[in-house]
Amino acid sequence: MVNYLVKQKRNKLIFLLGLCLSLIVLNVSCKKQNNIAPVIEPSTPAIVKHHTIERVEPPNWWVGFKNNTLQLLVKHPNISEAAPYISYQGVAIKKIHSADSPNYLFIDLSIDKNTNPGQFNINFKLKDGKELIHTYELKPRRKSADEYVGFDSSDAIYLITPDRFANGDPSNDINNNLLEQTIDRTNDYARHGGDIAGITKHLDYIESMGFTAIWPCPLLTNDMPNGSYHGYAMTNFYEIDPRFGTLDDYLELSSKMSNKGMKLIMDQVANHCGLEHWWMKDLPFKDWINHQEDYEANKDHWDNKFTVHSNHKRTSNQDIYASKKDKQGMTDGWFVSSMPDLNQRNPYMATYIIQNSIWWIETAKLAGIRQDTYPYPDKDFMSAWAGAIMNEYPNFSIVGEEWSTNPLLIAYWQEGHKNLDGYDSNLKSPMDFAMQSLIVQGLNEEESWGTGLIKLYEGLANDFSYSSPKDLMVFPDNHDMSRIFTQLKSDVTNTKMALSYLLTLPRIPQIYYGTEILMNDSAKPGDHGLIRTDFPGGWDGDLVNAFAGTGLTDTQKDMQNFLKNILHYRKHSKAIHEGKTIHFAPEHNVYVLFRMLNDEIIVHIMNKNNAPFDLDLSRFKEIGLHGKTLKNIISDKNLIWEDTLTLSKKGSTLLTTKF
Amino acid sequence: MVNYLVKQKRNKLIFLLGLCLSLIVLNVSCKKQNNIAPVIEPSTPAIVKHHTIERVEPPNWWVGFKNNTLQLLVKHPNISEAAPYISYQGVAIKKIHSADSPNYLFIDLSIDKNTNPGQFNINFKLKDGKELIHTYELKPRRKSADEYVGFDSSDAIYLITPDRFANGDPSNDINNNLLEQTIDRTNDYARHGGDIAGITKHLDYIESMGFTAIWPCPLLTNDMPNGSYHGYAMTNFYEIDPRFGTLDDYLELSSKMSNKGMKLIMDQVANHCGLEHWWMKDLPFKDWINHQEDYEANKDHWDNKFTVHSNHKRTSNQDIYASKKDKQGMTDGWFVSSMPDLNQRNPYMATYIIQNSIWWIETAKLAGIRQDTYPYPDKDFMSAWAGAIMNEYPNFSIVGEEWSTNPLLIAYWQEGHKNLDGYDSNLKSPMDFAMQSLIVQGLNEEESWGTGLIKLYEGLANDFSYSSPKDLMVFPDNHDMSRIFTQLKSDVTNTKMALSYLLTLPRIPQIYYGTEILMNDSAKPGDHGLIRTDFPGGWDGDLVNAFAGTGLTDTQKDMQNFLKNILHYRKHSKAIHEGKTIHFAPEHNVYVLFRMLNDEIIVHIMNKNNAPFDLDLSRFKEIGLHGKTLKNIISDKNLIWEDTLTLSKKGSTLLTTKF
Repeated sequence: MVNYLVKQKRNKLIFLLGLCLSLIVLNVSCKKQNNIAPVIEPSTPAIVKHHTIERVEPPNWWVGFKNNTLQLLVKHPNISEAAPYISYQGVAIKKIHSADSPNYLFIDLSIDKNTNPGQFNINFKLKDGKELIHTYELKPRRKSADEYVGFDSSDAIYLITPDRFANGDPSNDINNNLLEQTIDRTNDYARHGGDIAGITKHLDYIESMGFTAIWPCPLLTNDMPNGSYHGYAMTNFYEIDPRFGTLDDYLELSSKMSNKGMKLIMDQVANHCGLEHWWMKDLPFKDWINHQEDYEANKDHWDNKFTVHSNHKRTSNQDIYASKKDKQGMTDGWFVSSMPDLNQRNPYMATYIIQNSIWWIETAKLAGIRQDTYPYPDKDFMSAWAGAIMNEYPNFSIVGEEWSTNPLLIAYWQEGHKNLDGYDSNLKSPMDFAMQSLIVQGLNEEESWGTGLIKLYEGLANDFSYSSPKDLMVFPDNHDMSRIFTQLKSDVTNTKMALSYLLTLPRIPQIYYGTEILMNDSAKPGDHGLIRTDFPGGWDGDLVNAFAGTGLTDTQKDMQNFLKNILHYRKHSKAIHEGKTIHFAPEHNVYVLFRMLNDEIIVHIMNKNNAPFDLDLSRFKEIGLHGKTLKNIISDKNLIWEDTLTLSKKGSTLLTTKF
Repeated sequence: MVNYLVKQKRNKLIFLLGLCLSLIVLNVSCKKQNNIAPVIEPSTPAIVKHHTIERVEPPNWWVGFKNNTLQLLVKHPNISEAAPYISYQGVAIKKIHSADSPNYLFIDLSIDKNTNPGQFNINFKLKDGKELIHTYELKPRRKSADEYVGFDSSDAIYLITPDRFANGDPSNDINNNLLEQTIDRTNDYARHGGDIAGITKHLDYIESMGFTAIWPCPLLTNDMPNGSYHGYAMTNFYEIDPRFGTLDDYLELSSKMSNKGMKLIMDQVANHCGLEHWWMKDLPFKDWINHQEDYEANKDHWDNKFTVHSNHKRTSNQDIYASKKDKQGMTDGWFVSSMPDLNQRNPYMATYIIQNSIWWIETAKLAGIRQDTYPYPDKDFMSAWAGAIMNEYPNFSIVGEEWSTNPLLIAYWQEGHKNLDGYDSNLKSPMDFAMQSLIVQGLNEEESWGTGLIKLYEGLANDFSYSSPKDLMVFPDNHDMSRIFTQLKSDVTNTKMALSYLLTLPRIPQIYYGTEILMNDSAKPGDHGLIRTDFPGGWDGDLVNAFAGTGLTDTQKDMQNFLKNILHYRKHSKAIHEGKTIHFAPEHNVYVLFRMLNDEIIVHIMNKNNAPFDLDLSRFKEIGLHGKTLKNIISDKNLIWEDTLTLSKKGSTLLTTKF
């Protein structure tokens, strides 16, 4: 059998020879198949039964993509010795690549535009004349590419840690085929049993709060010995973790959300997998993961101390002075030692990740992807990845996690930014950690020339540098940060101010589950397990039920209503979604921001004075509100905008001309 | 007499009529002048003596500029009633503009390319037939435009507060024609007597230190009742303050510097003047300064409490959401109430400022301008101002003061930055307050994941966003900031680290006088008067003389030598001037940066460990130094770059391959 080593130039000739041979084989085989009816002979089989191939990924594909190529990963003992062939109108094998491991084949297929959806066999002719058959399916696309409409600034995203939100199906809590089999709600780092069914069950609640989109943290299998609840150590990129449910459960969630006009965002990870990923026992190429040599030489005593960790020097992605050593240390290092770092410079890995993303979009009719650890993979790959997706789904949305409070870096990662190095990420929505941080700082600080509300004002002024500010995702906190209520030192008023401000900004807002009932990690600030506390009411027998509102304190109920009021207004507010923004520099500890579109004018006022304050409205003359009646979105009371507005106490005021 | 009111459209016709009349007058007058010898008749004069016009500015001009127009400001009682004419080959009056005050005329001249340099009369024919004559001179340019070579990253700039550096000519200390006549070296806010002669006298010292350029704070007349020593409240834009010397003294300084190959940078102010500026008593236009109405209505009780101050919201220059109110509050507000804010949107003011800058460049053969309070004037004007200068002097340099630690704003103000609003400042060198601040933070902080040297490393990484990092001006402090030694808590080692780092960066470095002898304001940190302490040895009888080195402590002498060594090396180091930069993220409290060009490699190492540290050099393999001999620029000792470098103590190490 010819070995098609593609990564070495000297093998080009061998490769061409191989290609000729395989075409001959293909030809012969085709004839064979055409002339001989498949006969199954168990004792000395010429053709082995269907479905005996260990793994073919993607497990299926579709007809009708702009990109008409598909690369199949085939895993099976000594499969590299087999010669595959296909006989299906419109589908052709373009290239066959063997890998460094004999147990893999990568097959490039071309799928003609007019190919009929359907099933066909992929036959693998073995050296001894026997054959393996794998039945593959090309499905029809049930939605046009344009109909995959992503999230945008008209949405409000509810972020959920699925293990901690609601246990909709206790029967899937423990799975005996997986490594971590304990469930312990008293342990913040164990699994608690939350699942997809829990989210689906409480869709009405989420909708009633005014959210229009959900981003659940990863739901794919994390067959890790411990800490598997968070989902970021994937061991199978094509499988829903059985403890979260089945693929059907996921599709049901998607479909029910779609019926409600809500958008499902999938959390994906291109940077790494879990150490227990199935391919870790038999890596296809010598460079399938970064630091593979180190890993293979040391895997028997692999632990956290092993120094292949990323240096986390994310600035080296942009830095024109960064040493090669630091760049490599950033991109090739492992995020943590339980998460092997995928090598996206291996073209088969690159294709694998891109196809995986498209498979999930198409399978689950996603409305968006949240991509983890955005600046850690090879950045040219990330641009190609996002580009490939946006090419197939022009109205789709991707949000990328770049945990930096430096607007220069945030701007760099947004598509369309005029980077001096010519880089274009194709990423519509970077996360706005800068604004998050400034909101917290500004609210926690005393007011002075350079502290307090001025941080918010000057932070928002940085929008001049973004290619599209309204496509940035802003948030009070997320699953990796202290809860906003804790960050704001358990100050309810400041928490409300933070929330109303960010829900009024030209941004895509994301709120972490439980924010509405002031969930916090004050007992141990920053503790990940504690941050991801169970949502009360998500488990049978919970004494408090935040879904039903039973057992909540008045302060919690008040916050729930506060958020609900704003979210419901926001849902239909064109001025917030796409209006003009005008703000006035903080004066006398009061910061005023306007959003407007046509006859809708929103006024957001933050008053940090502890005493009542009479706001002189003459300063805002250019807005043209004089004499107009406005409604307070929170209190539902009306007022007339004249000379002075009395702010009765510290807090935010949200007014609108449209009601 | 026809009044040429240019600011109102309805006067266009009148203007044209006036133009015709003036041409007729011109014709008649020319004949008159040609035919009749000037006769002076004191009783009933037809022609009044030369030089009787109160003020004509610019006081002279040159032939040979690219821009062949010149606008003269003429001030004289009721001059608007006069009809000016000129008879000189190549020079023509293109337009005559009267102002709101009857005591001004603005005359637009065109000066043909081939005009001969020389003197000519400007005749002002009065209503009653009498004439005033002003002799004007067009000088030849003694240097080609290309020869005005500005400062750049090959320079090291010495910043001087002239009143506090050296008193070279005690005879000019007090001038009885000016408002502030006291001199008191015990008062930090009084004048101390330093002058231009003092700088000229100590040029050898400045040169011996290794500086190649000098930026003295403003030297123009500040005829203010108090606090006039700092120079930023100019009352005459065309006059050297007599207490600093004469125009000849200034030209002598320039010429002596030029002979030494040193560059003179003039500190200019386009934003404001001093409250006692001569024009404040009779403002030419109703909008010559901003808030002019407020000023005129209240000038009798004008004080610091008057609310026409700038809101100092500099972000409103970029902010796409800034209210008109805030933008106006920034641009039109007065910097302080003793400094009227010039209205550069008045086209005569705009031209006045541009011509004033060009007049000084050409008169004093300047090598650069430092422009004060850069973001405060109208920003379109500032672009036009810098553009006009760079158009005449393509190799010139301008450095602008934008006191912001936000790299987004610094980048915005640099020419060539791809601003989304299309703005191009034409400003080559913004100041790098961001880097200054990070150096201080990073050195003062304890080392940790996010504090200490990482601040310098990540700060420098922001260079990716600048259109030309090496044209930014960096500095440890300046005349408005606490002295670096004070900012660094009187830590000599940290001060050395700050200095060696910034002198190695791809930047134009500026050092404030006295830094070399650890001058400080620790007694009252941030006090402007104290920051601008007298340089010891600048005054006769000073017990300490830092020029001669007498009376300095060993620590001061050591710092003087430290700076001298680096500056002298830097002077000829192509690697520092224009070399490639590679740096390595801080590890084990050590931060290493390389600069290189051809065979010259500079290594800058900052060690923040208090104990000796063995630096593993294998990490820097990509630099290619292994086996090479390097010289320590400070200690003059050689070493071979092999496996390990022992850093004996906390501090910076500066090595070079070229010696």
